[in-house]
Parts: sequence; C-alpha cells; structure tokens
Amino acid sequence: MSDEEIIPPTIDDVRTAAGRIRGIAIETPLLESSYLNRLLGGRLMVKAENLQVTGSFKIRGAANRVAALTDDEKRRGVLARSSGNHGLAIAYCAQLMGTTAVVVAPDTAPKTKMARIRAYGARVVQVPMERLSEVARDLAAREDRVFVPPADDFHVVAGAGTVGIEIAEQAARLGLAPDIVLASCSGGGLTAGCLLGLSVSSKPARVFAVEAVGFEKMARSLAAGRRIDLEAPGQSICDAITGHYMAAVPFEIIRSRLAGTLAVTDEEAREAMRVAFGEFGLAVEPGGAVALAAVLAGHMSASGKTMVAILSGRNVDLPLAADALLGRPLR
Amino acid sequence: MSDEEIIPPTIDDVRTAAGRIRGIAIETPLLESSYLNRLLGGRLMVKAENLQVTGSFKIRGAANRVAALTDDEKRRGVLARSSGNHGLAIAYCAQLMGTTAVVVAPDTAPKTKMARIRAYGARVVQVPMERLSEVARDLAAREDRVFVPPADDFHVVAGAGTVGIEIAEQAARLGLAPDIVLASCSGGGLTAGCLLGLSVSSKPARVFAVEAVGFEKMARSLAAGRRIDLEAPGQSICDAITGHYMAAVPFEIIRSRLAGTLAVTDEEAREAMRVAFGEFGLAVEPGGAVALAAVLAGHMSASGKTMVAILSGRNVDLPLAADALLGRPLR
Repeated sequence: MSDEEIIPPTIDDVRTAAGRIRGIAIETPLLESSYLNRLLGGRLMVKAENLQVTGSFKIRGAANRVAALTDDEKRRGVLARSSGNHGLAIAYCAQLMGTTAVVVAPDTAPKTKMARIRAYGARVVQVPMERLSEVARDLAAREDRVFVPPADDFHVVAGAGTVGIEIAEQAARLGLAPDIVLASCSGGGLTAGCLLGLSVSSKPARVFAVEAVGFEKMARSLAAGRRIDLEAPGQSICDAITGHYMAAVPFEIIRSRLAGTLAVTDEEAREAMRVAFGEFGLAVEPGGAVALAAVLAGHMSASGKTMVAILSGRNVDLPLAADALLGRPLR
Repeated sequence: MSDEEIIPPTIDDVRTAAGRIRGIAIETPLLESSYLNRLLGGRLMVKAENLQVTGSFKIRGAANRVAALTDDEKRRGVLARSSGNHGLAIAYCAQLMGTTAVVVAPDTAPKTKMARIRAYGARVVQVPMERLSEVARDLAAREDRVFVPPADDFHVVAGAGTVGIEIAEQAARLGLAPDIVLASCSGGGLTAGCLLGLSVSSKPARVFAVEAVGFEKMARSLAAGRRIDLEAPGQSICDAITGHYMAAVPFEIIRSRLAGTLAVTDEEAREAMRVAFGEFGLAVEPGGAVALAAVLAGHMSASGKTMVAILSGRNVDLPLAADALLGRPLR
C-alpha cells in the first residue's frame, strides 16, 4: 500500500485493544531504584515489559491482532515475520485462540527464541535477513495465511499502544507525570503505540525512539521525511531491533509527533543489561535494554526530570546474558 | 527472653503493618509461565519479591520496625544483625526515616550487599559468622542503639506477613486459591509472616519452608519441638538463608501450623536462578531462589496443584549470577 492510503489507529483503537487483550497480557510494573535516581539526579522508572507474557511487549499487539481474526481467517492460520519476539507472541496467541502459525525469522535469530516458538506449536522458517520480507509474503500467499508483520499493522500498533496507557495510568497513581518516555525502536510499533497511548494524559510525555547504532531507520526516515529501509546495516547484538524495515502505519503516527531519536552501542546495551539485573532485579535482552542504555550512557540526561525507559523484552541466549553480567568483551 | 514469654503478632498486626509500609515497599507481581506450567502439569506462580525495594522482602519488616521507633529511639539509632538483605532494608529505612544504622554482617557476605549498605549511609561491621550474634548485641549495648534482629522481632514478622496478604489478594483477583505457598527460610520470619498473612483467605494455602541443605534449622527445630541453632553448619552459596539462628517469635507461629520443610542443594538453587531469568525475566539470588528450586527439582510436585513460590531476593554478586546462567560448575 502507498503511505497516502494509510489509516493509523487512534487512542480509541488503543482503548479497544486494552479491553481485548485483558487476561492475555499482564499489567507490568513500573519500577525504580532510589540509588540510581540519586546517581542520575532525576527520577528514572523502568516499565518492565520484559516480565510480559512470552517475554516482550509484543504480546500486546499479537493478542489484539489474533483476537481480531474472523473465523475464516482462523481456519487459514497466520504467518508472522519476526526477529523472534513478535513470532513468540503470535505463536502463543495462535495456540491460545485456536489457530495455527508459521513464523519466518532471520537465520541469525537467537536459539532461545526459535526453540520456544516451536514449543508454542508454531512452524519456524529461517532465512537470510535480506530475504525475510519477500519469503514471508510469498509463503503467506502460497499457504493462504493471514500475514502479520511485526509493526506495520493497524491492530499490532493499537495493541502496542496499551503500554502507553498503562505507563500514564501507573505514573498518575504515583502522583507523577513523566516528562519523557524512551522506547526501543525498530519498525516503530512500540514508539507509535506509546505516542497514542500516552495521549490519555493531560500533559503527555515526550517520546524518544532508541535505536541500535548501525540500524537507525527511524532517525534516517525522519531526516528524509519518508520511510527509509536499511540496505547496508551494521552489526549489533540487539537482535530485537535490527530489522531492516521502517513500517508505514507507525511512521504515519510518529513523523509529526516524535520528540527525537537516540542510538546506543552494543557495549551500552550490555551495561544496561547489567544494571537492569543488579538495580531492578530484571532479566533483559540487548534490544530490550536500549532505552535504559540511552539514559545510563548519558545520551539523554535524567537530571531534574521524570523519565520512563521501557524494557521491551527478555528473550536472550544465556551465554550472551552471562557475558553482559560479567562486563566481558564480546566474543 | 524465654519462649514462654513470647507474644507473636497476629493478622491484625500484619494489617497494621500493611498500612504502615505503604509507599515504602511496593506490591510485587505474581508471575507465571505457561510453558513451565505445562511441563510441571500444574500452575506455578512466583511472587517476585526480588523486585522489591532494596532487592528483597526484608524491606517489609524493616520499614514496619523502623516506623515504630519512638523519637528517642530514632535519636539513638538502630543496629541490625544481617547476612545482607535485612541490613540493606534497615539501612535504607534508617536513611529514609531520619535515623542512623549500623549493620553487623558475617565476613563472608556478598560484596554487592555490603557496598550498597554503605551507599545507603549505614556503617558496616563484618565479623566471623559464629561471633555475629554476640558482637551485634554487645555493639548495640555499647552504642545504646535499638537492636533489630533479622527475624526475631514482633514488627519484623508482622511486616513480612504483608507478603502473605498480598499473595492471597492477588491470587483471588485471578480467581485462584493457591494450594501451597513455598517460602525460603532461615530464621523463619518470612515463613511465619506468610502463615499469618495467608490467613486472610477463606481457605488458606498450606505453607512449606525451604532451607539450604546443611542449614536445616527449621526441620531440626520442628523435629525436636524446640528451637535448634546450628553448631556445625555445612557450606552453601545461599547466603541469605545460611544464618545459624532459629528465631523465637517466628517459631511460636510456625511450630503448630507449618505443613513441612524442604531443603535444596546449591546446584538446584543455581538451576532455579537460570529458570527465573529465562522463564520469568527475573534476577534472583541463590537464597532467594530456593522455593522455586524445590519445585523444579521435584522435591514438591506441582502436578494438579496451584502453587506460589516466593522469590525472596535478588542481591547477588554478578560473577556468581553469570556462572548460574551458564550452568557452570562452582569455582
């Protein structure tokens, strides 16, 4: 579809999604560390979506999408294109809601994620990253499955938006109005969802998208004023956000509303994994740690501000996690 | 004091504590893994007290105790005897509530815990474990400080009980009535507190105390019908529960009501740390993982049951945590 035809979801669609995913996704806690706050000179909260069902915020969009399938679509089944977390969420929801799923993933995806997708009863097809989009679309057509992209979908973005509503409501219960929310960003689903969801607040937080260095699709797309896919990406351990595609539905929401973008290195992501473990008691994957990393690395000063960093997922191979805890150089 | 004179707290005291610690301790989530449930053939929930302020459930008792100090007692300051987590909680509350703290800890206590206690502004005194109790009492007397033991205290046990109320209420909101709750156990504060707090339920869960092999104070005390301190303990990485003393106040509550005791090895605790990370997204310390370990190791079958394992703390030195994630032999 061309970008002119896109009708993005609104806050009403996010509210509908919130009702639809209740009982499937959980309300994850907003946590803070008084010690870290003192060091940073501000108030930093983390939204622990790493504790979410299937291990990432992706369950929100997946549950909203699968719940919206017609009976005929359920008979045909779904097909997800995913670096892992979206596939996990789709596989889980497919099993829960009585349909079947195929997940097309890059051949570099973490073993942990692929094994669990299979355990949820889905079929996994791994292909080189540069063929991911093409294979996914072809296979969906051939098997007559409903194609569910990780971000470029009305229901997926509306579902992701529920994390924004939750942050706004949880902060309000604490008597807080966050100045800034930082979201890990690849195709833009979480970032766009946050922008929508946070709008329930009377004074919505500014939202920043955090990318992995070498994969700055959002920064480049915003600079160009149109969606830019990656042709010669870098290398990163942040597999959850190293997709090559900037999604159209999120970009429609983001382009005029995003406060800015930031990018973090692998070493900064690893440091954030270490801090998440020690300061917050949380297991986080590299791509799920980048929002926290941006603050810890000083790319965004927390001084005098109230900020929320979304920890978007936990699904990491354990040797990589162990290395991060030890602060050892990458192998 | 002799055991005959002990007046243990009741559920009313736990309710009072819940009001007193509100805004200091947080309500930690009750989490589950559909994958693990399928493997276990039952419903296993974890109560994530590792996410608690200061990294363990100990904040509940400490906040309740420090909040109950008179103005004169606050001027004199407190002294805690602790393997680490209770000391962390007391140091944090002392700073928060405007008094001073000294923490007497064993010389084998994790560096992470000792450094953070100092960062909270408390003075740390480390001594050999066998001199812990004596030094703590002498120093409290010499400095005229209020002595706060880790478990043997009316307010500490009442505060710990708030975790039991929370479990009962959270489970009820999910439409569940747990059959069994497993609590890590050293002096018995958490176990006794759970027995009290869970009694708000119309059909209270049975409570099991989980100890570290070589440190089975509770099992031996119950068998003997009186409190037994350890004279020749074993070795364990589960520092949070390797104290030598069975506490009198908790034992009064526990002796007639506990469903039983279990004990886990270091390797079982390490496996539970790995599973907590991968399945639940949680960082847990060895002594905080023993309740989960008891279920995973098959010491307590979850088949057909609804169980809650309390993950009581997260404060672990990172190299030990990394080793556990890798499943490597102990150094």
